[in-house]
Amino acid sequence: MLAMGIDPGNAICGYGFVELNGNSLHGAGFGVIRTTPDMRREERLLVLYEKIHGLIRERQPDVVGVEKLFFSRNVTTAMTVSEARGVILLAVEMNRTPLIELTPLQVKQAVVGYGQATKEQVTYMTQRLLCLEKKPTPDDAADALAIAICSAHCRSVEKIWRG
Amino acid sequence: MLAMGIDPGNAICGYGFVELNGNSLHGAGFGVIRTTPDMRREERLLVLYEKIHGLIRERQPDVVGVEKLFFSRNVTTAMTVSEARGVILLAVEMNRTPLIELTPLQVKQAVVGYGQATKEQVTYMTQRLLCLEKKPTPDDAADALAIAICSAHCRSVEKIWRG
Repeated sequence: MLAMGIDPGNAICGYGFVELNGNSLHGAGFGVIRTTPDMRREERLLVLYEKIHGLIRERQPDVVGVEKLFFSRNVTTAMTVSEARGVILLAVEMNRTPLIELTPLQVKQAVVGYGQATKEQVTYMTQRLLCLEKKPTPDDAADALAIAICSAHCRSVEKIWRG
Repeated sequence: MLAMGIDPGNAICGYGFVELNGNSLHGAGFGVIRTTPDMRREERLLVLYEKIHGLIRERQPDVVGVEKLFFSRNVTTAMTVSEARGVILLAVEMNRTPLIELTPLQVKQAVVGYGQATKEQVTYMTQRLLCLEKKPTPDDAADALAIAICSAHCRSVEKIWRG
């Protein structure tokens, strides 16, 4: 089963793929989509949408996991990232791919086994679990791989329960 | 010049069209797009995107005005409406239509001449300015018409300045 993880962002959005076969887990590529502040807001959303849409169409993941946002301080940032999340969810639905929305807590628990894990712990465990030679960078791509791991597990558990 | 106004929302999103010829202003249609809570989040975003995209492609407005959000209290609502705004901005950009983002203050000032105007005053002035026989309803459609009026004025002023 191929799972895709997406860490939504405005200037930088991470994505990662993992392959789960039985209980064997492997990294299957990762990267980031960057847009720059000199672009119009709607132009940045279009670039993000087209890249995500293209990746899903090309790789045909069995599930896409997207991180949910929890903001309490900066409402402006929360709104900008939510606009990006909107076009990401649209791209998933356009491809008729099952979507899983995950909280940062769920992702940390799945990868490190501890909801309050640090960013470094998540990256370290992601690298170990996926047998990657190097630490995945930047952070946004590492986060996306962690989201993909959690999505793959959630999806396989779902399948067992549903039969 | 045909201007379209959009009042972004999740369950209900208002839209309205106004025609500005010289200094003569007329209503050119309005309505709302509704989605229901039994639909998946990404399904609601797809319906919204397709309806807005279809309206812009069909009516070919010269400008689309979308209201900016200012939330301080309910961050969850702000994030949901921002996701909807994301797919609306995407639909505008997909059609290569000029976009204007307006604050509620700008819209009220353009329509009533007073930034602290009530919803009733905005609806009343919108009906008068567009020579509509009846009060436009629901509120979301009336707001969208007010946004369209403001967008038409902004766009025509821009054109004069740019020559």
